Amino acid sequence: MTVNKWMIKNGSFAVNGSEAGVVHGFMIVEDSRITYIGETLPAGEEETEAIDGKGLLFLPGLINTHGHAAMSLLRGHGDDLALQVWLQEKMWPMEAKFTSTDVYWGTSLSVLEMLKGGTTTFLDMYDHMDEVARVAEESGIRASLMRGAIGLCSEEEQRIKLAEAVTFARNWHGKADGRITTMMSPHAPYTCPPAFIEKFVQAAHDLDLPLHTHMSETIAEVEQNVRDYGLRPVAHLDKLGFFSRPSLVAHGVHLNDEEIALLAERGVAVSHNPGSNLKLASGVARVPELLRAGVTVSLGTDGPASNNNLDMFEEMRLAALIHKGVSGDPTAVPASEALRLATEYGAKSIGLKEVGALAAGNKADFIALDLNQAHFLPRTDLISHAVYSASAKDVAHVWVDGRQVVKNGECLTMDEERIKHEAQAAFEGLLSR
Amino acid sequence: MTVNKWMIKNGSFAVNGSEAGVVHGFMIVEDSRITYIGETLPAGEEETEAIDGKGLLFLPGLINTHGHAAMSLLRGHGDDLALQVWLQEKMWPMEAKFTSTDVYWGTSLSVLEMLKGGTTTFLDMYDHMDEVARVAEESGIRASLMRGAIGLCSEEEQRIKLAEAVTFARNWHGKADGRITTMMSPHAPYTCPPAFIEKFVQAAHDLDLPLHTHMSETIAEVEQNVRDYGLRPVAHLDKLGFFSRPSLVAHGVHLNDEEIALLAERGVAVSHNPGSNLKLASGVARVPELLRAGVTVSLGTDGPASNNNLDMFEEMRLAALIHKGVSGDPTAVPASEALRLATEYGAKSIGLKEVGALAAGNKADFIALDLNQAHFLPRTDLISHAVYSASAKDVAHVWVDGRQVVKNGECLTMDEERIKHEAQAAFEGLLSR
Repeated sequence: MTVNKWMIKNGSFAVNGSEAGVVHGFMIVEDSRITYIGETLPAGEEETEAIDGKGLLFLPGLINTHGHAAMSLLRGHGDDLALQVWLQEKMWPMEAKFTSTDVYWGTSLSVLEMLKGGTTTFLDMYDHMDEVARVAEESGIRASLMRGAIGLCSEEEQRIKLAEAVTFARNWHGKADGRITTMMSPHAPYTCPPAFIEKFVQAAHDLDLPLHTHMSETIAEVEQNVRDYGLRPVAHLDKLGFFSRPSLVAHGVHLNDEEIALLAERGVAVSHNPGSNLKLASGVARVPELLRAGVTVSLGTDGPASNNNLDMFEEMRLAALIHKGVSGDPTAVPASEALRLATEYGAKSIGLKEVGALAAGNKADFIALDLNQAHFLPRTDLISHAVYSASAKDVAHVWVDGRQVVKNGECLTMDEERIKHEAQAAFEGLLSR
Repeated sequence: MTVNKWMIKNGSFAVNGSEAGVVHGFMIVEDSRITYIGETLPAGEEETEAIDGKGLLFLPGLINTHGHAAMSLLRGHGDDLALQVWLQEKMWPMEAKFTSTDVYWGTSLSVLEMLKGGTTTFLDMYDHMDEVARVAEESGIRASLMRGAIGLCSEEEQRIKLAEAVTFARNWHGKADGRITTMMSPHAPYTCPPAFIEKFVQAAHDLDLPLHTHMSETIAEVEQNVRDYGLRPVAHLDKLGFFSRPSLVAHGVHLNDEEIALLAERGVAVSHNPGSNLKLASGVARVPELLRAGVTVSLGTDGPASNNNLDMFEEMRLAALIHKGVSGDPTAVPASEALRLATEYGAKSIGLKEVGALAAGNKADFIALDLNQAHFLPRTDLISHAVYSASAKDVAHVWVDGRQVVKNGECLTMDEERIKHEAQAAFEGLLSR
C-alpha cells in the first residue's frame, strides 16, 4: 500500500516542553500520523511536496469534551432567563419535538462551526445518536459519542433507553477509520435513579467503555442529591461504582476539598465548561484547585444554546482569565496550561491516547492559525497569542487523521450553504409544529 | 454644497426600543449623519444608490472607553505574572524607551485592529499624544484623547506634564472634523499627589473638558489610599473636586455601597474593563449594582498588553457572562444591556451626544456584521447573536462620521502591511535598545 507522505516547512509548531512552547521548522505527515517534527529535516529526507507554513502557527486540534451539538437549533431561542424558565419554557418543549432529521441538521451546523474553528474532536451526549455519528463519519471530524439517557420515566422506557445506548455504543465504537469512539452516559445523578445509573456502569464494564455524566453543575442539584440520597454527588456516584470505570464528569462547579481529592484518587476527569457555567449562572468551577490536586481538567462548550457559540479559543481564554480574576492570582491557569486543557488533557479526558499533542507517532489532528494579523503582533509569545488573542475565525486550515478538512477557512468536507439553509428550516419547522 | 446622500436597503438595524431590538428595512445617510431608519422609505423617497444590506446586522459602532493603544507593542511580552513583576520587570522598562515613533506605530497597530473589529471610537490615555491624534486623524476613527500624567516626579516635571496635557487638550479638541475630543487625565490617585490632581481639575474647569483617571482597580491601591490619605479613592477624589467635572473613572473594581451611591449622585461614569481586570487578577467589578444605582457603565479593553486583544465583542460578552456567573443571577447584564454598555453608555461616558445609537440625527458611526455564518444561525434573537456569538472578525463593514473605513474586512484608510511591518520593527527596536 502506498503511503501518503507530505510535509510542512517554515512552520511554527506548538510542541509541549519545547523552548517558548514552539518549534520552528518541519513537520512530516504519513497517512493519518505525524512522523516527524523538528527544526531541520532528518538526514536523507528531502523537501518534497512541502506546504509553506510561513506565517502559520500549528496547534494540536482542539478537543471539545462536553456538548449537545444539535442544540445549535435553539441558539438564541431564549437567553438571559432564570434556569428553570429557560429549561421548562424554552428548551424542553422544543427538544421534545426534535426528530432525527433535526438532530442531523443541528449537529451538522455545529460540526461545521467546530471544524472551521479548529475543533478536531468533539464529545456529544444526546438522542438520535445515529444521526450524530453519520455527521461525524461524513465530515471527517473525530468524535466521542454517547446516547445520553434521562431516567425519569417508566422502567420500560428506561430499558429502551439503556438498550439504545448499548446498541449505539457497540455499533459505532471504532468506526469511521477509528475516528468514532463511544461512551456510556446516564444524563446526571439528579435525572437518573441510582439503579438506572448502576445499569450503565455495568454496561460500561461489559463493553469496556468509559462513562460520562453531568455532575455538580448547580448548588440546587448538589442539595437535592443530599436530600434524596444523603450524599453529595461525588460520593453518590462513587458508591454506585461510577468511578470504577474511566470516567469524565461535565461541569464539576460545586466541589468541596474532599470531593476534589476523591476525583483525583479515582482518576476522574472533569470537563470544565466556563462559558456555559457563567451564562447559566451556575458559578465558577475550582479549576486551579482541581489542577493542583492532579485532576485531569479539559474544556467543553456545552450545547450552543447555553454558550452561544462553539469557539474553543473562547473557552480557553475564559479558563485562563476567570480563575485569575476570581482567585486574585494572576499566575493561575497560564496560557500554556489553558492550551493543554483544550488539547492534551482533552484527549486524556475521553481516553484518546494518540491525539492532543503535536508529536511524532500521534494522529495528525492539527490546525493552523493565520498569524499575519494585527492582533498577533508583535511576535512575542505565540502560545500567549493563541490563548489570549485568537478566536475561531483565525483558523486557516484544519487536518483530522491526516486529512485536510478546512482550507483557507473553507470546509472541504461539508456543504456549508446547504447546512445553513436546512438548519434554519429545521428551526422554523420546530417553531411551527 | 452638495450633500452626499446614500442608503442601505434590506438591512437589519439594531435600534434601541424597537421590537426584538431590531428594525428591518432602510437607513439613509446624508454626509456624516444618519437621517432616517425605518421599515419602509419615507414618502417621496426613492431607492437610489442603495447598498444591499441583506444578511447584514447593522450595529452602532462600538466605543472603547479606556485604553493605551501604543501598548500593543508589548502584547505577549510577559503574561501570567504577578502584577508588580509584570509592571516592574516587563512593562515599565520597555515603556520608558518608547519614542514618539513607537507610539505612532503601536497606536496604528491598535487602531487598525479596532477599526477592523468594529470599534469606531476609542479613548486613549498615554504619552506622545500628538502621535495618537495623528493616527486618529489619518485613520478616520473617532477618539477621545488625553495625555495621562503620573505625578511621582519633581514639581518641575509635574509642571511640564500638566502643560503638555493642557496644550494637547487645547490643540486637538474638536479637530479632524470634530472626530477628536480631549479630556484631562491625571493617571490615578495612587500615582498623583493630591495637589497635582487638583491642578488637573482646575485645568478641566478652565478648558471646559471632562476628566478621566484610573480608580479602585486593585485592593492594594484602595488600601494604600486609605493609609496615605485616610480616605478610600472615591471620597478622596470627591474631596479634590474631581467629580465637580463630568468624569469617567476606569476599572472601579473595588467599590463599596456608599461609593457606588456617591458615583451615582455625582454622575460619574465607570469604564468597566472585564478582560483586563480578570487577566491582571484585579477582581470582578460590581457592574449589576452600579447599573442598578444608575451609574453609567461603559466598556474598555485597557491596553493590549493586559487583554491581549482589542475585540470589543469579547468585552461585551465577558460583561454579559461574568456577572451572571459571579452573582448567580442568569438575568444579570442581559444581551441588550451589554450592547448598550459598548455603545450608548460608551458615548455618554465620554461626553459624545451624537454617537452610540442608530437614530436619525446621530452621526453615522456604524458597523455591519456578516450574519451568513453557522454561528449566527438560526435567526432567533439577533442582539443575542451579536453579544453571545460574535467576534471582531465577524465585522464586514465599518463607517465613521459617514465615511466607510472598512469594507469586506479590509481597512480602506490605513496601510495594513506597512503598519504590521513597522510595529514588529518597533518592538524589535525596543528589545535591542
